[in-house]
Amino acid sequence: MASLWVDDADTSCIHPGALPLRGTAQVLRSWTVLMANVGYIQFFLTDVEVTTFPRGDAEPTTAVITCTENILSGEGLSSAEAFAGGKAVCTSILVKEHGGWKFWSRHASPIAELHIDDEDSA
Amino acid sequence: MASLWVDDADTSCIHPGALPLRGTAQVLRSWTVLMANVGYIQFFLTDVEVTTFPRGDAEPTTAVITCTENILSGEGLSSAEAFAGGKAVCTSILVKEHGGWKFWSRHASPIAELHIDDEDSA
Repeated sequence: MASLWVDDADTSCIHPGALPLRGTAQVLRSWTVLMANVGYIQFFLTDVEVTTFPRGDAEPTTAVITCTENILSGEGLSSAEAFAGGKAVCTSILVKEHGGWKFWSRHASPIAELHIDDEDSA
Repeated sequence: MASLWVDDADTSCIHPGALPLRGTAQVLRSWTVLMANVGYIQFFLTDVEVTTFPRGDAEPTTAVITCTENILSGEGLSSAEAFAGGKAVCTSILVKEHGGWKFWSRHASPIAELHIDDEDSA
């Protein structure tokens, strides 16, 4: 995990519903805690959209990726064979460092399941 | 509002709890609907952190801004003098275009108010 992130005091990670974590040490610690508390977790990424900056440049230095994280987890379930699912939308910012892409920022957020009434009241 | 955003089919905006909106036309439409449905709304930004890319470059082309949006709104309240507050954390990506900074992406998410039990159960 450490190899995926820029090592800097200004990197940031926002987990769904959480406050921002600042700095790679704190970000990596949060992932360690998360991984230590689930028996199983897998992310299936869908709706992946990538834009690189400067736009149109053959040698981009920054990339913005939005995606849906479909999360399959075995946390807190009754048996080892039971799984639960979850979903978050995510915006990640990656920068090129030593020839490879690394995370600078990740912002994931929950999707509210709203009950929408008839729209004729507007 | 239109002057604040890059006009492109790949820009994105994620409102708290919502799915991503793609493309400036759709993004601006969402802000129009939001503004049309509140009598009063004001954003107080705190915890603002700015990083520019390429890092250390005197002529940056991209900027990442994280902040807390403290939102004061008069929506759906009983009287014109009544206000409600809300809070979201936000990651924005701005790019330099024609000498000025414009939004490429905004991702805002709700902050869950969790009741944390004693931590000795871990």
